[in-house]
Amino acid sequence: MAGTLYGVGVGPGDPELLTLKSLRILTSVPVLAWPAPEEGPSLAREIVADHLPGTQREIAIRMPLLPARFPAEDVYDKAALEIGEALDAGDDVAVICEGDPFFYGSFMYLFGRLSGGHAIEVVPGVSSLTACAAALGSPLSAKNDVLSVIPGPLDADTMAQRLAEADAAAIIKVGQHLEKIRGVLAQIGLSDNARYIERATMAEQRIVPLADVDDGDAPYFSMILVHKRAEAWK
Amino acid sequence: MAGTLYGVGVGPGDPELLTLKSLRILTSVPVLAWPAPEEGPSLAREIVADHLPGTQREIAIRMPLLPARFPAEDVYDKAALEIGEALDAGDDVAVICEGDPFFYGSFMYLFGRLSGGHAIEVVPGVSSLTACAAALGSPLSAKNDVLSVIPGPLDADTMAQRLAEADAAAIIKVGQHLEKIRGVLAQIGLSDNARYIERATMAEQRIVPLADVDDGDAPYFSMILVHKRAEAWK
Repeated sequence: MAGTLYGVGVGPGDPELLTLKSLRILTSVPVLAWPAPEEGPSLAREIVADHLPGTQREIAIRMPLLPARFPAEDVYDKAALEIGEALDAGDDVAVICEGDPFFYGSFMYLFGRLSGGHAIEVVPGVSSLTACAAALGSPLSAKNDVLSVIPGPLDADTMAQRLAEADAAAIIKVGQHLEKIRGVLAQIGLSDNARYIERATMAEQRIVPLADVDDGDAPYFSMILVHKRAEAWK
Repeated sequence: MAGTLYGVGVGPGDPELLTLKSLRILTSVPVLAWPAPEEGPSLAREIVADHLPGTQREIAIRMPLLPARFPAEDVYDKAALEIGEALDAGDDVAVICEGDPFFYGSFMYLFGRLSGGHAIEVVPGVSSLTACAAALGSPLSAKNDVLSVIPGPLDADTMAQRLAEADAAAIIKVGQHLEKIRGVLAQIGLSDNARYIERATMAEQRIVPLADVDDGDAPYFSMILVHKRAEAWK
């Protein structure tokens, strides 16, 4: 009987934000797979490393960091082939996914390749979206708010329109787009309603006023939360 | 020394989707508080009931179900007073919250009343948003998608506009608004891109084609996910 592919969300970084279900699956399957840079450790694996028995087969999915190579289709092709062979041999395989696998997760690249011919179950995880709101200490959305998740790479005009239409917004993948985003927020008068956070729930978590972040200084794992009723909770 | 108020997310319903952190806090604080209907059990408490030691003080926050009485400010006033007294006496208090406390959670009503004078920490949980996508078996959002969360009570014109602007959407709080929502989706040509689910991850989880749900039959805990590239993952 063929194995099942699990996409397992392990939360935003704090190892304690792992769910009981993710823990059970990650410690019981014979094969693990995890994303990592071309060299060095896997952040996703590090979140759960203390729980792993050390006896499982592990498949590293090492991605080139150069944007021109992203997503590296050949890397996912090779990983899907290796994972598919393990599944066909009857082994369950769990892919360790930061945050939640289906919320802007790179798991989609494996899902797209393997969902036709294999049983797949996704185990949801705590997403960076709600983890950032918790760390910033104020509600993300409430009542009949429209909440929009807006990727930082969008062009300034589109971003301004989407922000104008929502009651609350989370701008994700800030990174190198910080200067543009700050300009958009100023242009539509929402600078004072925006809160910046990077590496939420990780040991290196940092919360600073948006105005104090240097343009080149925002990591990929940063987020800006915006709410038009910024003081409505008080 | 005054106690800390914890808003603790316990996930969408499956007790196994509890995080290690939520479990630790809920089993170690001297006082728990939880929402419930005027009579009968608390769904939030039931999610974690098997873990509770049975020795904690418990504060029931019982809400009238009549819409005309919602939110019942007097009920939250009374609960905030009782919780505030426990905090002032030096006890930590954990409020058990379905899903995530800051994602459309009723915890905001206590947060608004108590955040001025007390230490508050929110522990994020798996939200219904990602749990529904996992249960439905296809990605919520990816790459540079704009994802909008749209409450069902919004009027049809606003809902149609917000849906038109997003790449992906989650329509929450469907309940009695199903007929209107179905009309909006048909009007803008997205009926075939919509997937319906109720009580995700609970024992009573139900996934049926949107066309097959009777108008009066959708519970409050139901969601419709929409993606304009419905087949893009295959």
